[in-house]
Amino acid sequence: MNDMNIAPLDRLAAVIESRLPAHGGDPDKSYVARLLHRGPDAFLKKIGEEATEVVMAAKDADHGGDRAKIVNEVADLWFHSMVALAHYGLSPRDVVAELMRREGTSGIEEKALRKAQDRDASND
Amino acid sequence: MNDMNIAPLDRLAAVIESRLPAHGGDPDKSYVARLLHRGPDAFLKKIGEEATEVVMAAKDADHGGDRAKIVNEVADLWFHSMVALAHYGLSPRDVVAELMRREGTSGIEEKALRKAQDRDASND
Amino acid sequence: MNDMNIAPLDRLAAVIESRLPAHGGDPDKSYVARLLHRGPDAFLKKIGEEATEVVMAAKDADHGGDRAKIVNEVADLWFHSMVALAHYGLSPRDVVAELMRREGTSGIEEKALRKAQDRDASND
Amino acid sequence: MNDMNIAPLDRLAAVIESRLPAHGGDPDKSYVARLLHRGPDAFLKKIGEEATEVVMAAKDADHGGDRAKIVNEVADLWFHSMVALAHYGLSPRDVVAELMRREGTSGIEEKALRKAQDRDASND
Repeated sequence: MNDMNIAPLDRLAAVIESRLPAHGGDPDKSYVARLLHRGPDAFLKKIGEEATEVVMAAKDADHGGDRAKIVNEVADLWFHSMVALAHYGLSPRDVVAELMRREGTSGIEEKALRKAQDRDASND
Repeated sequence: MNDMNIAPLDRLAAVIESRLPAHGGDPDKSYVARLLHRGPDAFLKKIGEEATEVVMAAKDADHGGDRAKIVNEVADLWFHSMVALAHYGLSPRDVVAELMRREGTSGIEEKALRKAQDRDASND
Repeated sequence: MNDMNIAPLDRLAAVIESRLPAHGGDPDKSYVARLLHRGPDAFLKKIGEEATEVVMAAKDADHGGDRAKIVNEVADLWFHSMVALAHYGLSPRDVVAELMRREGTSGIEEKALRKAQDRDASND
Repeated sequence: MNDMNIAPLDRLAAVIESRLPAHGGDPDKSYVARLLHRGPDAFLKKIGEEATEVVMAAKDADHGGDRAKIVNEVADLWFHSMVALAHYGLSPRDVVAELMRREGTSGIEEKALRKAQDRDASND
């Protein structure tokens, strides 16, 4: 049996969903309601921004910076991903199910690997 | 009590960690081992790339595209985030703990909201 | 008089435009023709990827890395921007004209500054 | 002879350079001086953000949106790239020289193409 328990992400997703305009989310009282109210460009832009901040925090850690910053930035990235998922009627459970599906599919890593090796070969 | 059960992500993190060079991950047999072997730039670049693909899939969904593509791209984004976390000795558990910590901190959303409102006011 | 001479970018744009499918660009003979042939997702993804590489090269330079890498990555970023512009019937000349228009508009920097200051104030 | 006239970008670069802290740029009076004063993370983050906005504007154009938005976002992306270049003692002239160098190098496109074809082959 595949244990799909991701309780904390389910709870967070429920909070985010309660901020949807259709669920009465008030853009004057909640940051998430405000992002959702403004529409896709507002939260999609944040995903690009937070991905860049993950990269910068990781680069800083490579040079002696605090790894806690990486955790913070990945949390921001996943959080804004979840805002986007909520807008499209999706959930972290869908994402985790997809990750589990791949894990269970034999040969997935091998195929990705073969592609990556071909790329390298052609760099020579 | 705060239920921190994220079993599927823990299992996936364990697989990724087993691909670390220090754990004997073989870059000729595993895509993840290969990314980790190549070092930070290889997987950080993927984070920027996958964030862009999430944005494109979302934009397509806005215009009638398949929402399943969003799930796929967020899965890719989270997966490569987890590869980065593993490299830095971190885990999805750290990220989820940070998200839970924020959820528990009253006033977080209010502060983020106030900042966002100030930004808007200055756009007028 | 506003000198709009950007000869080298004009020449490069002309080469890129000659690779458009409508102009006979052959995806089997040219990298640009191939990107244009594959459509927007192919070159837009590259823009997100190259932006991340600029950020990584800059971070490396902050820690003693070679600044020439920044030049290379910005060149990649601008180049793929120009591929996108060509696809949409636009040119670097349009971009430079927009940059010049802003330069000539008094108060632009002041407005951007005021917004940024408001953001800071609300971070306190 | 290779005409390297990019007069408008040279002028814009000179304005940006005059905003460097070392050149007396005042963060209370200029948006660029403020970005430069805050350091790399401030303007590098903008590069990731503006790249995402280019992608969103292009996707909107694919579905009937105004192409002028693409020009605006590419202008933002190039502008913030130039702020980064100035911080590292580099200029758009360095970038354009690199682009010209590649144009003059025979076989460049062919190599990039061969790599891309190998990638495709391995997707089958």
